[in-house]
Amino acid sequence: MSTPSLLILAGDGIGPEVMTEVRKIIDWFGAKRDLAFDVSEDLVGGAAYDVHGVPLADETMAKAQEVDAVLLGAVGGPKYDDLDFSVKPERGLLRLRKEMDLYSNLRPAQCFDALADFSSLKKDVVAGLDIMIVRELTSGIYFGEPRGISVNASGEREGVNTQRYTESEIARVARSAFELAKRRGNKVCSMEKANVMESGILWREIVQKVHDEEYPDVELSHMYADAGGMQLCRWPKQFDVIVTDNLFGDLLSDVAAMLTGSLGMLPSASLGAPMENGRPKALYEPVHGSAPDIAGQGKANPIACILSFAMALRYSFDQGAEADRLEKAVEKVLADGLRTADLMGPEGGSPVSTSAMGDAIVAAL
Amino acid sequence: MSTPSLLILAGDGIGPEVMTEVRKIIDWFGAKRDLAFDVSEDLVGGAAYDVHGVPLADETMAKAQEVDAVLLGAVGGPKYDDLDFSVKPERGLLRLRKEMDLYSNLRPAQCFDALADFSSLKKDVVAGLDIMIVRELTSGIYFGEPRGISVNASGEREGVNTQRYTESEIARVARSAFELAKRRGNKVCSMEKANVMESGILWREIVQKVHDEEYPDVELSHMYADAGGMQLCRWPKQFDVIVTDNLFGDLLSDVAAMLTGSLGMLPSASLGAPMENGRPKALYEPVHGSAPDIAGQGKANPIACILSFAMALRYSFDQGAEADRLEKAVEKVLADGLRTADLMGPEGGSPVSTSAMGDAIVAAL
Ligand SMILES: CC(C)[C@H](C(=O)O)[C@@H](O)C(=O)O
Ligand SMILES: CC(C)[C@H](C(=O)O)[C@@H](O)C(=O)O
Repeated sequence: MSTPSLLILAGDGIGPEVMTEVRKIIDWFGAKRDLAFDVSEDLVGGAAYDVHGVPLADETMAKAQEVDAVLLGAVGGPKYDDLDFSVKPERGLLRLRKEMDLYSNLRPAQCFDALADFSSLKKDVVAGLDIMIVRELTSGIYFGEPRGISVNASGEREGVNTQRYTESEIARVARSAFELAKRRGNKVCSMEKANVMESGILWREIVQKVHDEEYPDVELSHMYADAGGMQLCRWPKQFDVIVTDNLFGDLLSDVAAMLTGSLGMLPSASLGAPMENGRPKALYEPVHGSAPDIAGQGKANPIACILSFAMALRYSFDQGAEADRLEKAVEKVLADGLRTADLMGPEGGSPVSTSAMGDAIVAAL
Repeated sequence: MSTPSLLILAGDGIGPEVMTEVRKIIDWFGAKRDLAFDVSEDLVGGAAYDVHGVPLADETMAKAQEVDAVLLGAVGGPKYDDLDFSVKPERGLLRLRKEMDLYSNLRPAQCFDALADFSSLKKDVVAGLDIMIVRELTSGIYFGEPRGISVNASGEREGVNTQRYTESEIARVARSAFELAKRRGNKVCSMEKANVMESGILWREIVQKVHDEEYPDVELSHMYADAGGMQLCRWPKQFDVIVTDNLFGDLLSDVAAMLTGSLGMLPSASLGAPMENGRPKALYEPVHGSAPDIAGQGKANPIACILSFAMALRYSFDQGAEADRLEKAVEKVLADGLRTADLMGPEGGSPVSTSAMGDAIVAAL
C-alpha cells in the first residue's frame, strides 16, 4: 500500500499551535514506528478567507477529497464576526463535512481519571465515564432547504431553516452507532423529539427498524432529546452509545463534553462511506473551538488534537494498537502531573506550555 | 373586580394527585386571605383522549380562552405511546399554548438551599442558583409548516419540520425577557445558532435591536446554544435571564432544571398578550412530566405544581406578596426536613406522601 496521505487544515485561533504539536507526534510515528504519512497543509476558516476571500478554496476541497484523512484544528474568531453568512469561517468546515459526506460524527466523552476533579459534577458521577455520541453530520436543519431570511406575505422578515431527514440518511448513521456499540458496551440510546416533530417520528422508526433487522442483539432504547439532556447531567454513566441528529448532537455532545471536565482533551472523528482503498472518508478534529482569547500565547492544550490523530490511527489506518500507545502516552503525562493552563485547578500550580506538553507526550511515546 | 377564574387541567399520570394538593392551597387562600377563585376543572392529554377521542376538546379550549388562568398538571403516558401523532396527549398541551398564543414561557431554575446536595453538580456550583429561562413557546420548529412525513422525489420517505421565526415573534419574547431582567439581575443572555442557521441570525439581530431601542440599560450578551449548554453545566451562576427559541429552550431549560437537583420543585408560567382585563393570557404548569411509573402511589412531589400556583398569584393576579408567602411556606417545610420520595438522598430516611406534603405546606401558611 502506498504511503497514506494526511491533509492538515490548522485553521484559526489556537488551531495552528496545537497542530504544531500534532506534527511532532506524526513525525515520531514516521521515525520510530515505520508509519510514515504523506502530509500536506492548507487553509480553512478565517485563515482561508484572508487569502482567498472564501473559508475553503475549491482546490483545498479537491485535496480533501483525495487524501486518506483530513486533520482539522479549529475555525472562527471575532475578526470574522461581521462577515456575510456565506463566507463565515464555519462555512468552510460545513462544506468539508457536506461534500465529503461525513455523515457519522463520533464524539467520545471520556473522563480522564487524573482530571475527574475538574468537572463541575460530583466525582462519583463522572469518574470513569466513557460514552460515545454519534451525531448525524450531513443533513437535518444544518443543510435542509428552504432556508434563509426573506420578507413574508405580511411584509415582515422571517428566518427559515428546514429539518429534513430521509430514511437512508437515518439508517446509515444508525448502523454506524450499532457497529460501534458492538465493540463497546453493546447499548445504543437514540434521541429525538418524536413527541413534537415528525422528523423525529421517522428517526425513531428507522433506528428501530435497523436494529430489529440487522442488530437485534444490541440493546436499544429511545429517549426524548430534552430528557436525554437531563439524564446526561444526572447520571451519564447510564449511557454507552448515543445516536442523534445533527442539531441535537451539537448540543448534547457539548453538554457531555463539559461534564467530563476535560474539554481541552476531547477528540472527534467524522466518517463517511468507504473509499476505493477501503478507508472511510474521514476528518478528525478536536471538540474545542478556536479559543481566540488565548491564541498565540502558548497556553492551548494540544491533547484534544493529538487524540484526534489517535482516532485517525484507529479509524482510518487500522492501527488500533498504535492509537492505544498514543492514548497511553497522554494518560501517562497527565498521571505525571503535567498540566496546561486550562487544567489548572483553583489551588493553582505552574502550567506547562503547549509545546512542552507536546514534547512530553513524544517523550512518553 | 369579579372573582378571578381558574381552570384546572390535571391531565395524566401524577397530574391529578399533585393537583389535589394545589386545591388545598387554593382553598386556604380563599378562606384565610380573602382571595377566592372561581375554579373549574376539565380534561387534557390522555385523560381527554379517553373520553373525547382527542387530547383537548373544543369546549375545553374555549373555556381556557375565557378564564383568567389555566393550571395544568402533566400529560402523557405509555398507554398513549402508539396513538397517532395528531391525537397524542402532547398535542393537547401544544394546542393550548398555540391557540392561547402563550409566547413567553418562564422557567426559573432555582436551587433550594435545603436541597443543594441533591444535584449531581458540586454544591458550590449550584448553591444559591437562581436563573430564569425565557423560552419562546408558540413558534419555531414546534409549529412551522411545511411538516410531516412524505415520499420524496427519489421515492424515499422523508421527515420534515420547519423552523420559522418572524421579526415580531422574536421581538415580543425578547421584550418579555428584558422586562423580567429589569426586576432581577438586569442581565440577558440570548442563545441561538447564528453560525449555522439563518433563523438564528434574525433572532440575534432582533434581540439586539429591541435591546438597543428599548432596553439599553439591560446588559445583553449572545451565545451559541451549544456553548450555552456547556456554560450552564460549567458555571450556571454566570446567567441571570436566558432567552431562546422553542426547541433550544426545551433542551436548555431541562438541563438547567436538572442542574438544580430539584426537578420535582420547579414551576413554570406561559404567558401571552394582555386580555381586556389587563391580565395576560396564562397557563401554569410544573416542569416535571407525568411520571407514569409512580402515578397513583402517593409518592409524587406536589411542590412544583404548588409553586406554579405561586407564579399564577404573581404574574396573573398581581399578588406578589401572597406568592412570596406561599414560597416561604414551601421553604419552611423543606428546612424542617420534610421530603417526598424523590428527595430522599442515598442515606435514606422516611419520605412523606404527596398529601402529607400538601398538608404541611397548608399548615406552614
Ligand atoms: C463551528 C460549528 C459550525 C460547529 C457546529 O455547529 O457543528 C461546532 O459547534 C461543532 O459542534 O462542531
Ligand atoms: C411534553 C412536550 C410536548 C413538551 C415540549 O416539548 O415542549 C415538554 O417537553 C415541555 O418542555 O414542556
